[in-house]
Amino acid sequence: MDNQYEKRINRIKEHLHQTNMNVALITSPKNVYYLTGFFTEPFERFMALVIDNRHNEVYLFVPALDKDAAKNAAIVGNVIPIEDSEDHVQILADFLNPNLLSIGIEKDHISLQQYEDLSVTLNDTSFYDIGAYIMSLRVIKSQDEIHKIKGAIKAIEKVMEKGEEKIRFGMSELDLVSELEYHMRKNGAEGPSFPTIALFGENSALPHGKPGSRYIRKGDFVLIDMGVIVDGYCSDITRTFLFGEGTAEKHTIYNIVKEANEKAIEAVKIGEPLGVIDEAARSYIIEKGYGDYFNNRIGHGLGIDVHEKPSLHNQNDNKIEPGMVFTIEPGIYLPEFGGVRIEDNVYVKESGGVEVLTTYPTDLKIL
Amino acid sequence: MDNQYEKRINRIKEHLHQTNMNVALITSPKNVYYLTGFFTEPFERFMALVIDNRHNEVYLFVPALDKDAAKNAAIVGNVIPIEDSEDHVQILADFLNPNLLSIGIEKDHISLQQYEDLSVTLNDTSFYDIGAYIMSLRVIKSQDEIHKIKGAIKAIEKVMEKGEEKIRFGMSELDLVSELEYHMRKNGAEGPSFPTIALFGENSALPHGKPGSRYIRKGDFVLIDMGVIVDGYCSDITRTFLFGEGTAEKHTIYNIVKEANEKAIEAVKIGEPLGVIDEAARSYIIEKGYGDYFNNRIGHGLGIDVHEKPSLHNQNDNKIEPGMVFTIEPGIYLPEFGGVRIEDNVYVKESGGVEVLTTYPTDLKIL
Repeated sequence: MDNQYEKRINRIKEHLHQTNMNVALITSPKNVYYLTGFFTEPFERFMALVIDNRHNEVYLFVPALDKDAAKNAAIVGNVIPIEDSEDHVQILADFLNPNLLSIGIEKDHISLQQYEDLSVTLNDTSFYDIGAYIMSLRVIKSQDEIHKIKGAIKAIEKVMEKGEEKIRFGMSELDLVSELEYHMRKNGAEGPSFPTIALFGENSALPHGKPGSRYIRKGDFVLIDMGVIVDGYCSDITRTFLFGEGTAEKHTIYNIVKEANEKAIEAVKIGEPLGVIDEAARSYIIEKGYGDYFNNRIGHGLGIDVHEKPSLHNQNDNKIEPGMVFTIEPGIYLPEFGGVRIEDNVYVKESGGVEVLTTYPTDLKIL
Repeated sequence: MDNQYEKRINRIKEHLHQTNMNVALITSPKNVYYLTGFFTEPFERFMALVIDNRHNEVYLFVPALDKDAAKNAAIVGNVIPIEDSEDHVQILADFLNPNLLSIGIEKDHISLQQYEDLSVTLNDTSFYDIGAYIMSLRVIKSQDEIHKIKGAIKAIEKVMEKGEEKIRFGMSELDLVSELEYHMRKNGAEGPSFPTIALFGENSALPHGKPGSRYIRKGDFVLIDMGVIVDGYCSDITRTFLFGEGTAEKHTIYNIVKEANEKAIEAVKIGEPLGVIDEAARSYIIEKGYGDYFNNRIGHGLGIDVHEKPSLHNQNDNKIEPGMVFTIEPGIYLPEFGGVRIEDNVYVKESGGVEVLTTYPTDLKIL
């Protein structure tokens, strides 16, 4: 049994004990991965990790298709396959009944329908949330997780390098995306951590714009926002280039965003509220007169999910803690004109220092 | 206002009226796309289509980032952006209160946590499910949807052709996946409809196997299972090739699966139970002595989701209806030896006939 996963399961067991819950029922594939080392996307099929504190047993229910893969990867000895034609609620209830007084479920993940189905069958059981507790564990990364995130960053930075090389006159946004995603695979990624964004010119002003058939033109901003999954962990980086010199205002905006990114990174100090990070960048962008054009939070946690806790908006009073990993991604988006975003991934070290995990240069590059 | 989306929203309005519900709150991004023509993946942010039958109004709440994209794409006039720092539950409650007696939500999609948050604020409101009704509409495809699915199939078949060409000695599964996904983009796909599967040799016996560093060897099965999204609609096709002649048993297995696929397609008849489709393939595979090695259902519905209703397992007594689109994908998986799957996408026509939408040849090819 792998020590890291065993430790995490033991923390769940302790938490169950302390909160007087009999059983944890964990159905989020990412939480199952976090706790067992086994990942699968069951789609509409049923998968659950059951930690039963009454009998000190752990079970992993998986779609029959995934039985062998689960047995190979998961640290859990009891892997129980469920056929498509079987009724998983009944199977689960038979395992859990009788004498199940209380169960912890991930209220953020389980659907209302799944809950209602379960609560009919487990009708003497009280349901509590265990998802927030698991997410609170996930916020603080282990050395092994930092290692995996670094692997995902290393891969994406190689892709960024390749992408920069491939940009040429006559190319569309989608052409660039296909080059980038090709090199993701070539660099060992399991896949993109979110749909790859490559936006040219005025499209770069859309923070969630979708790459399309827009061709590159002289003086365009080229905004690339992308990440990959490696060993189940995500990277998420943005760089903005200029294709040709561009106007003076483009240079100005770029340098404001770069400075804002640096100010935000400097604001990362253990014990301070998370909101100060956004505030540091925002007040600078406002001072420079572009406050109306930075209309999103400065960042988000990063790990098994590409967006996870903490949320780095300026109202977040929770404290910065060692072990956190998050993005810092200020931007200025001028409608019809273009936008700049510079996004790094930072790690709050035990020592209190900050390690900027992304190493790709941020000086303005004219391609 | 685009007629197709307007019609769908009108059907929801009628359903609300008939079931005495005041409001529909639709939060699944795919259902929002189905009803408005606008798609975004809001991640942890909040997005909802609100159809308010009390005042005959329709609102689309989107993350502030997506405001412009939503205004451009959605047929809904009232687009309401929500900033990251705002409390969406409060904003929504202010819109819905007072006098909200009953609301329809997607119980299969909304999380228990979201439901609990809403039910605290809307504490005099009864909650009902509207998700099953929307999914029942989605099962029956319009001509426009068939057209979009055909677009996704056309793209993936070009990718299959390219993939077949690219297979060569010395290649790993991941090398092949990177070639395939590159050509998905090149053929206009928005992305894969699920993680692309390319498995060699004994790995092809894992119906949900993950491509890795296994290199191709003489006599290997090469199983490719993949799909793309085009215009928001999915394709999903599997072909299995032989790299070199392979043993006689490999030829035998291949031809049994091919025959099983054909028998299943022949069994598609309007008014028959869906289960007969699986049964037609299964009984043939059992007869040939490989019944223990076909351990999954024969198929699943296909549309905006790559896996949607109906589920084609052999216990499904629901009837085959015109307008349905689903996969037919029998397989034989011999552990440690290799597996064959042949997957087509079929459409049950109004006329009662069956159109096999996938056109890629199924005769055994030796590469």
